[in-house]
Amino acid sequence: MPHIALRSDLFGITSLLDFRPETAGPLCELTQLLLRGPSTLSEAQRELIATYTSYLNDCTFCQSAHGAATCQLPGGGPEQINAVKNDLDSAPLDDKMRALLRIAQKVQQSGRAVAVEDAEAARLAGATDLEIHDTVLITALFCLYNRYVDGLATALPADPAFYEALGKRITTRGYTMPEDGYKPLALK
Amino acid sequence: MPHIALRSDLFGITSLLDFRPETAGPLCELTQLLLRGPSTLSEAQRELIATYTSYLNDCTFCQSAHGAATCQLPGGGPEQINAVKNDLDSAPLDDKMRALLRIAQKVQQSGRAVAVEDAEAARLAGATDLEIHDTVLITALFCLYNRYVDGLATALPADPAFYEALGKRITTRGYTMPEDGYKPLALK
Repeated sequence: MPHIALRSDLFGITSLLDFRPETAGPLCELTQLLLRGPSTLSEAQRELIATYTSYLNDCTFCQSAHGAATCQLPGGGPEQINAVKNDLDSAPLDDKMRALLRIAQKVQQSGRAVAVEDAEAARLAGATDLEIHDTVLITALFCLYNRYVDGLATALPADPAFYEALGKRITTRGYTMPEDGYKPLALK
Repeated sequence: MPHIALRSDLFGITSLLDFRPETAGPLCELTQLLLRGPSTLSEAQRELIATYTSYLNDCTFCQSAHGAATCQLPGGGPEQINAVKNDLDSAPLDDKMRALLRIAQKVQQSGRAVAVEDAEAARLAGATDLEIHDTVLITALFCLYNRYVDGLATALPADPAFYEALGKRITTRGYTMPEDGYKPLALK
């Protein structure tokens, strides 16, 4: 049961975006920019940062939704996600992505945990300032989302097929708010 | 030294908003809505939630800036802030605000830490669903900001008078982005 009265036909973040459209507007705009805007990081790489952060924060809804999205994008896959969750050091990643995910791992704990050496390692592996910046901000944004979704105890879907359908929606339509409001996802 | 190349005449969050204006736009809009938009929580109460969260995250820049803002608003003061930091149970607050800050304290740790009883206690003390929602989202937003500001090791001002001046700017002009870009604050 959510801690506040939310629409019972919506789940997770969608029920909150529907509850307060005024704050949903800039939140969706920020997410669309960071995860779908022009970037030298692929959409799968950015979704992986979101998935990993949500995993570290133990947020079932967000890690399932963004995990599904990552797997549906070119370059993403369930084996990679599982490997990252199990052991970042041995996961099949290029050096830049590994260094960026190490920064994400620190930021999830605390901004203060990021050391000069972490940023230096990312730069040596080829990361630009903008890629380091966006990694920190994507991680911080999902530290927001995970707390928002779980802090108000939003409902989880009973059918795991929901996340496949949500992944499809966010990999095709993106994060822009629907003009005619949020509707329940049609599951096959 | 910041982890990325930021303007050296700007500090904390301002140097980041200047670095990436595309993401600064929706971030400022969200903050303006939550901290300055129409609400049954006073501006001082909302700044206090931001200050307390930033204190719990040990973020010097944010707790100093929003602490100064809280003190400059009607109903806010340094004794209250210090009492909240020292012991939420005995701080001079009404029951509703104490219950909302207890929720903030949980959300700062993890969204999952918020119990049914925490929301119920806030409601019994007179909090509405919207007040509970906004408390969770303000706390989550500052969990973002604190990680963003410290995760990129933004510079701190040497002169503590800076925070008084910044507090004055955000209590008078709010969080809306300046049309002609960010400029260094004039200190007396």
